[in-house]
Amino acid sequence: MHRAIWIVIAAWIACTSIGCATRRPDPLPSWNEGPAKRSIIDFVAKVTTPGSPDFVPSAERLAVFDNDGCLWSEQPAYFQLLFAMDRVRAMAADRPQWREEEPFASLLKGDLQGVAAQGEKAIAAIVAATHAGMTTEEFAAVAREWFKTARHPTTGRPYQEMVFQPMLEVLTHLRDSGFRTCIVSGGGVEFIRAYAEETYGVRPEETIGSTDTLKVEWREGVPVLVKQPAIDFVDDKEGKVVAIQRHFGRRPVMAFGNSDGDLAMLQWTAAGAGARFCLYVHHDDASREWAYDRASRIGRLDAGLDEAAARGWTVVSMKEDWRVVHPPSR
Amino acid sequence: MHRAIWIVIAAWIACTSIGCATRRPDPLPSWNEGPAKRSIIDFVAKVTTPGSPDFVPSAERLAVFDNDGCLWSEQPAYFQLLFAMDRVRAMAADRPQWREEEPFASLLKGDLQGVAAQGEKAIAAIVAATHAGMTTEEFAAVAREWFKTARHPTTGRPYQEMVFQPMLEVLTHLRDSGFRTCIVSGGGVEFIRAYAEETYGVRPEETIGSTDTLKVEWREGVPVLVKQPAIDFVDDKEGKVVAIQRHFGRRPVMAFGNSDGDLAMLQWTAAGAGARFCLYVHHDDASREWAYDRASRIGRLDAGLDEAAARGWTVVSMKEDWRVVHPPSR
Repeated sequence: MHRAIWIVIAAWIACTSIGCATRRPDPLPSWNEGPAKRSIIDFVAKVTTPGSPDFVPSAERLAVFDNDGCLWSEQPAYFQLLFAMDRVRAMAADRPQWREEEPFASLLKGDLQGVAAQGEKAIAAIVAATHAGMTTEEFAAVAREWFKTARHPTTGRPYQEMVFQPMLEVLTHLRDSGFRTCIVSGGGVEFIRAYAEETYGVRPEETIGSTDTLKVEWREGVPVLVKQPAIDFVDDKEGKVVAIQRHFGRRPVMAFGNSDGDLAMLQWTAAGAGARFCLYVHHDDASREWAYDRASRIGRLDAGLDEAAARGWTVVSMKEDWRVVHPPSR
Repeated sequence: MHRAIWIVIAAWIACTSIGCATRRPDPLPSWNEGPAKRSIIDFVAKVTTPGSPDFVPSAERLAVFDNDGCLWSEQPAYFQLLFAMDRVRAMAADRPQWREEEPFASLLKGDLQGVAAQGEKAIAAIVAATHAGMTTEEFAAVAREWFKTARHPTTGRPYQEMVFQPMLEVLTHLRDSGFRTCIVSGGGVEFIRAYAEETYGVRPEETIGSTDTLKVEWREGVPVLVKQPAIDFVDDKEGKVVAIQRHFGRRPVMAFGNSDGDLAMLQWTAAGAGARFCLYVHHDDASREWAYDRASRIGRLDAGLDEAAARGWTVVSMKEDWRVVHPPSR
């Protein structure tokens, strides 16, 4: 009995003197103390504390995240485009005609400026050639293999290590607080699903993206789904609002983005009744990541910055608010 | 100490003598004993028992259900069409021109044969007039109000009581066994979502259906989603396979349907590796519900019956397998 009392007292002393650190560790250790970190922690606390005037039942706790530039880097080009270019190189051995055919010829010569000069039509041709004509399962296997072997052109790291450690912590903190964490990306949904569950803990059914047209074909009496060389839905800008309604049938409580392509999603989230939270990741860290915003070709953040300031949304300075950007190498 | 031992012994006697009925009640009490009921219970047991060669991890336990004719009745017409017709009558006061304009004129005169004679175009006009031109939230409110007040034309019961009690038990049994239970219906997704969570325990994000085109409009600086008079996606036949892949990114383990419109979904499910389960509800109970199959205009089950027989899928005889059809009135 004496021993039990002693343990309780010791525990109480330990708990009060170190702020009960073992029971409530900092959920966002890669964030520097400051208003951005505080805004996330305070919002989650107020919507999950029973009896709080802002309490949100767990079934309604939906948090949506853009992917490119919000959960992982998006420079020097969207990673899915780098994947497509790697695929062109890998597929070229069986397609000698590509050596004469644009945009493949320029790409295979390493003339990326030449590809870019051909505009969106060239990108669409590259994406169609590398993403279509195979089943969804074949594509998933190709993408997973690429993630295992490919390396980022400037950092030399696997792409799955180009994710933002502070955002991984936000995802985990939200899930630990009863939120469903979902991706709403302009990227292709099958590409994101190839790594999102392992990397982010976001399941396939929680991942929305742009979609190719899918067609059921019958092979030896068995149905397969074949990706067609045609875009079915572009999940960007107002399309994100449409996709969220179609997929979830409810408005998010929290929304995270980094570009003007996410602005409608954040505005839709903010327009709901009750407590809502919107956050922009601002790429202002040229030494640890990249610095770009109002004038960038990729991930432009212009109108969104103004709207965030006008509405008091959280704007994360990667430079000031994040202790680390990418996770340490494995 | 004596008392504790006595409680354990008493519990053991109670448990063994009544088959531990308090701990393991029959999960499907509205099902008569027989191969259909047994097939469901045995399949769920084998995929959820750790160590079983057919074990399926809980993240992969996806079960998909058609709605009309599978989870609730669909006669004398799809209930969403009856909703649309009720809406035409309710809206007619503000639209005097409808008294001269087909198909509304026939409908308002009660000439449903006349409406039917005008074919699918008439149905589309009625659905567009009653489902479009309002925000998703306005539509949800209208549908929820209809569910509160409308009554089925032949039974006089609220539509939410026209669900199948045995299927409610299947939904609950699967969820209790770690499955996600999802609706994949040809009906409009916003219509189903208006009652599915309360009635089936199926959440909005677990409900897939046909979709109208949605458009973001700005009203006083706030975005709203307005339903357009145009079909975006028909979630029927092979469309169900496409929709499941888009939405969930994984193949179902169990699939439940009642018509040829569900056949591709069942075939897609069956074609997966590992244990899979497919079930058809066969409407053969003219006295308690309706009897129809190979020649029916609504919910035709023809090719599906042959496929089920050839592949050994479960075919439920409503007459023989179900102790009750609809739940008792509240």
